[in-house]
Amino acid sequence: MRIAYLGPEKTFTETLTRQIFPDAELVPMIPIRRVVMAVERGNVDLGVIPLENIYNGHVIHTLDSLTRCENVRIVQERKMKVVHCLGALPNHGKITRIHSKDQALEQCDQYIFENFPDAELVLASSTSEAAAYIAQSGYLDSAAIASEAALKQSGLEIMAVDICPNNFTRFIVLGRNLTPKTGDDKTIVAIHPIKRDQPGVLADITDIFRSQHINLEYVHSRPDRDNGYYFYVELDGHENDENVRNSIVAIRYSLDARHKHPDTLKVLGSFPNSHWKDEN
Amino acid sequence: MRIAYLGPEKTFTETLTRQIFPDAELVPMIPIRRVVMAVERGNVDLGVIPLENIYNGHVIHTLDSLTRCENVRIVQERKMKVVHCLGALPNHGKITRIHSKDQALEQCDQYIFENFPDAELVLASSTSEAAAYIAQSGYLDSAAIASEAALKQSGLEIMAVDICPNNFTRFIVLGRNLTPKTGDDKTIVAIHPIKRDQPGVLADITDIFRSQHINLEYVHSRPDRDNGYYFYVELDGHENDENVRNSIVAIRYSLDARHKHPDTLKVLGSFPNSHWKDEN
Repeated sequence: MRIAYLGPEKTFTETLTRQIFPDAELVPMIPIRRVVMAVERGNVDLGVIPLENIYNGHVIHTLDSLTRCENVRIVQERKMKVVHCLGALPNHGKITRIHSKDQALEQCDQYIFENFPDAELVLASSTSEAAAYIAQSGYLDSAAIASEAALKQSGLEIMAVDICPNNFTRFIVLGRNLTPKTGDDKTIVAIHPIKRDQPGVLADITDIFRSQHINLEYVHSRPDRDNGYYFYVELDGHENDENVRNSIVAIRYSLDARHKHPDTLKVLGSFPNSHWKDEN
Repeated sequence: MRIAYLGPEKTFTETLTRQIFPDAELVPMIPIRRVVMAVERGNVDLGVIPLENIYNGHVIHTLDSLTRCENVRIVQERKMKVVHCLGALPNHGKITRIHSKDQALEQCDQYIFENFPDAELVLASSTSEAAAYIAQSGYLDSAAIASEAALKQSGLEIMAVDICPNNFTRFIVLGRNLTPKTGDDKTIVAIHPIKRDQPGVLADITDIFRSQHINLEYVHSRPDRDNGYYFYVELDGHENDENVRNSIVAIRYSLDARHKHPDTLKVLGSFPNSHWKDEN
């Protein structure tokens, strides 16, 4: 089996992909759209990309890329704990500079704020790159934020472990087949109203879901480059559940009663609910 | 006047901040939370941070940081066009590798997909770093995506201009005072329902806005780390407009009729509508 994942190699995404598919051939690809298109065209069997990080929010390129496809569907979700550590050279002195990737620095802002309020923060292309840089430069006043493995691999001493607690990333597995119902599923849809800047479009949509007793896990409106919006909605239920089917029919009718526009609601996938936020 | 902005120096954020405040003292800060806290504590007069990019979506750290503050308010929004170009050494051959920052590679995915479907993509810590790397390495099979200025500064030849069309970033200016009404304003609020995972909470909220004829520009639900949600809503109107005031009162009442929780709705700011998406 051939599995594409968002590269580069030696990242959390590769680790997770290897965990899910221990025996598959893994192919790193950058950017997200290449992974999605490789699944779309059947160049690979499945793809693994990030959907959301607890601290950084949703990866909008993932949702946008899926919306532009015909064949790709979300078939599974998996969470992974991201453990950031602080490391420096064993003989380090007072730390006045901290190197890491921008997203990692943002995730660890509370720790930095409390422990190194005056440190200069320096951007690296990846967290492991930051660790390698400290080792190569020999700077004794500098530290890196990276995984414990990356810090140790660069010969750095671990100064603090898990400095951004409860940091989870949710990944999705992409395939081309409908996932069967399990009785505890979620569905992500992209809704594209034709009406623009009109009070109440979102209220009309959420009214329909409420009337079918469907809990919404996530709602996100997104400009569509044409002065309109997409609404990304993640809801509890499978697209073949009766109340979800009813909602989809009702929303399509509400947005486009004459069926002139084929794309007012697109199902990006139904998949088993992993309750990924529960153990935070 | 002292203005903090999201660093590092020599980025689009610095350019924009200099345009708005040509005579001010500018102080770069990383990460976003430092800018917000500098305004919160009065260490600077104002702050400038990104809120949204048309391709990458919202900067969730901006909204999360504002929600955690007492004094900071959004007082202005400004858009800036981001023009990405492709550059390589003047005597370059066939391009097989493209270097840039991850967000820039994602933004330019359509161009790369059409023009360099097989190129290896390599991450850099910033777009200007990518340009400098190509120049230093002397690689003739590699190109960088960066601003025209950064490519030229590194002595690279411009191969293509504006390869990610209509790429705008919306920045916000942070202050500590209420912005007066202009008659064409927007307001961003953070809503924190006490009820959790209950069908209809969002529908109740959007119903209230619809009943007051308020157009919602943006809605985003966000996990709150306690199994609940924040809803970030951007709406047309000023917080002192009667219909916005009515909505706020009604939402607070609907979420917490006995006023036991002070933080069910927080206004992050009202500011003049720049109609930033109109000229896309």
